Amino acid sequence: MTETHTSFPLPAGFLCSGIISGIKEDKSKKDLGLIHTKKDALLGAVYTQNKFPSVHVGYCRNLTPSNRFRALIVNSGNANAATGQKGIQANLHLTVKLASLLGIEQNQVFTSSTGIIGRPFPIATIEASLGKLIENLQPDCTTVAEAIMTTDTKKKIAYETVRIGDKHYTVTGFAKGSGMIHPNMATMLAYILTDAPIPFAEIQSLTARVSEKSFNCVSVDGDTSTNDSFYLICSNPVAKLQQRELESVKHAVEKVAVALAKQIARDGEGARHLIEVTVCGGTSIETCRKVLRAILTSSLVKTAIYGKDPNWGRLLMAAGNGLAGSSFQNNAPLSIKIQEIPVLVAGEPVEFEEAVLSTAMDRETVRIELDLHGGTYSITGWSCDLTEEYIHINADYTT
Amino acid sequence: MTETHTSFPLPAGFLCSGIISGIKEDKSKKDLGLIHTKKDALLGAVYTQNKFPSVHVGYCRNLTPSNRFRALIVNSGNANAATGQKGIQANLHLTVKLASLLGIEQNQVFTSSTGIIGRPFPIATIEASLGKLIENLQPDCTTVAEAIMTTDTKKKIAYETVRIGDKHYTVTGFAKGSGMIHPNMATMLAYILTDAPIPFAEIQSLTARVSEKSFNCVSVDGDTSTNDSFYLICSNPVAKLQQRELESVKHAVEKVAVALAKQIARDGEGARHLIEVTVCGGTSIETCRKVLRAILTSSLVKTAIYGKDPNWGRLLMAAGNGLAGSSFQNNAPLSIKIQEIPVLVAGEPVEFEEAVLSTAMDRETVRIELDLHGGTYSITGWSCDLTEEYIHINADYTT
Repeated sequence: MTETHTSFPLPAGFLCSGIISGIKEDKSKKDLGLIHTKKDALLGAVYTQNKFPSVHVGYCRNLTPSNRFRALIVNSGNANAATGQKGIQANLHLTVKLASLLGIEQNQVFTSSTGIIGRPFPIATIEASLGKLIENLQPDCTTVAEAIMTTDTKKKIAYETVRIGDKHYTVTGFAKGSGMIHPNMATMLAYILTDAPIPFAEIQSLTARVSEKSFNCVSVDGDTSTNDSFYLICSNPVAKLQQRELESVKHAVEKVAVALAKQIARDGEGARHLIEVTVCGGTSIETCRKVLRAILTSSLVKTAIYGKDPNWGRLLMAAGNGLAGSSFQNNAPLSIKIQEIPVLVAGEPVEFEEAVLSTAMDRETVRIELDLHGGTYSITGWSCDLTEEYIHINADYTT
Repeated sequence: MTETHTSFPLPAGFLCSGIISGIKEDKSKKDLGLIHTKKDALLGAVYTQNKFPSVHVGYCRNLTPSNRFRALIVNSGNANAATGQKGIQANLHLTVKLASLLGIEQNQVFTSSTGIIGRPFPIATIEASLGKLIENLQPDCTTVAEAIMTTDTKKKIAYETVRIGDKHYTVTGFAKGSGMIHPNMATMLAYILTDAPIPFAEIQSLTARVSEKSFNCVSVDGDTSTNDSFYLICSNPVAKLQQRELESVKHAVEKVAVALAKQIARDGEGARHLIEVTVCGGTSIETCRKVLRAILTSSLVKTAIYGKDPNWGRLLMAAGNGLAGSSFQNNAPLSIKIQEIPVLVAGEPVEFEEAVLSTAMDRETVRIELDLHGGTYSITGWSCDLTEEYIHINADYTT
């Protein structure tokens, strides 16, 4: 698994394409992608919990999970959110047209959108490009990974292999991230494709379990999009699988999901640092998660890390915020390490060389560890620093 | 009530002072303040819900409410948070010393701190300045309002008068804000002093009620400090007050609190705009508050307003986030106005001139109104935009 590959192996049974259809203002950027399976495949998915979900979220939810998946069309540049009845009709029209061209049924077609909210869905532009999109199908996901990018500076792809019995299978994923990224069910557009065997009865719970420790643990700016979706698609449905084998598949899918989650955080809008936070010693996973989320979303933590400033008081503040309203005891002993260097041990500040720690923070990844000294639960998540560049990108996106 | 006054009337019975003691690195800035009453006074207060509260919060909570208040000493530059047993001892020592110098009892002295977390509390520096602090007492709160400033660019003072029977009383408040400001009980350091009559039995609930519609509705960066405190001090305790009279007092106190809350938001770190958000049509106040908080803390909303970008999709996104997990119906009709101009009416986008609306947003205050079309509850709150300057200020605060 690496970020430097230019082409990635696709699991057996999948074809992908990504093209320029003209949705985006910049007509040199890909904006339309397709995932197609040769046979009926399994699909599990988790979607945004935002109460104003996009059209594709409402549409796909009704078809999830599926054991008849054949195609997913995704566009970037237009969110098809807050587009009223016209947006719903346009999405439906698109699935009918694509199904007809591919010779499959309408309800075997899934859709995804990302981009600006509240703009009319450019159905004519998309429809005119469907032929070209299908012609470009090939066993490679590079172009579709490019087609889903908005303010992403890099495409995000990861893969793993998994052995079941004497056979090797492939798990390949790609995602888009950047802004409006926050842990709340699925948290961006992410697709993981595999030819590893999965029973239909397991696909949905597997998808949900994987997202808990990957996409649900990443935050760029605390905003959960109207469009966030994570799809797991399996071209190798089986009737039954041993528990041990299922866990092997889950493990490989989770590794790909975590790799994508980290790539998303690292490429957060304007980011200079990947922030990796581990909260341990919690009395429950929920306690750990509350602290994790508060730290991952704290503007004061994120700006301090941008400034290579070992201002650990902000970590303590954020942890205390995350726990507000809980039964956690006030000023219980807390330990904090930054880049492995202890700065607070069981509630007592430790003397350290600020210049040395600041230099240690001058790396691509800044690791933070908080120990709540209360139990055995732990969780790890990812975020990025908050820089002037985030402001530049977001102060002028539509106009 | 105005921001341009250079001196403000203080209610009868109060004296204040603010001096330079040398806590801050910049030795030209005031950093130590005192509020003193000539007689026993009432104090009600609300404190941060952060689970790592500062020493002063733990200390004051035990004395709240009080009908024997005589003095409150406040320092800026050092938070006295995460300072362990030494910090608790230093705070206690300070109250003993000040009580002795003022000829009052130790438990009539309250304390407040704001500044960097985790640094040893500079008790020697403060103690050496107590004489000077007392000498400078006068019936004016200008210097103490200056002494509590950290990254604030302006001191924040507001006053109102209230008539009870044929007598006029004064309500004067001052506050500090800037960073780590978020609605969760008290949300900064704020002090409101009055000589209007209040019964002891009412002081605490009055304080809590006032904070609900003022300080609890303001957010700068979503971070709730370890030190946030709001104190209401009354130099005119009475045995009884008619309900109508009590409501008049509450109304005046609330007006001062709202004025301070708005000044805090307007002077948020790096802010160019005051953002005023009204959420109406909610089925409950809690529903309205969830939407309000999500909008006030959304980095994407705040950067859009900085960019004068009428990207209302971000408001819809933030509202949907705030409601995540609630029983609110997906894609229920929502209306949005920006600067009085409708952009979404009952869920349907409205055509508008982007350039005209962008120009309308080029004012000091940007007003946003969301109608949930579900009930009769409403709430108003304040935030500020997110600019490069916020990053500059916070990327290098301790180092």
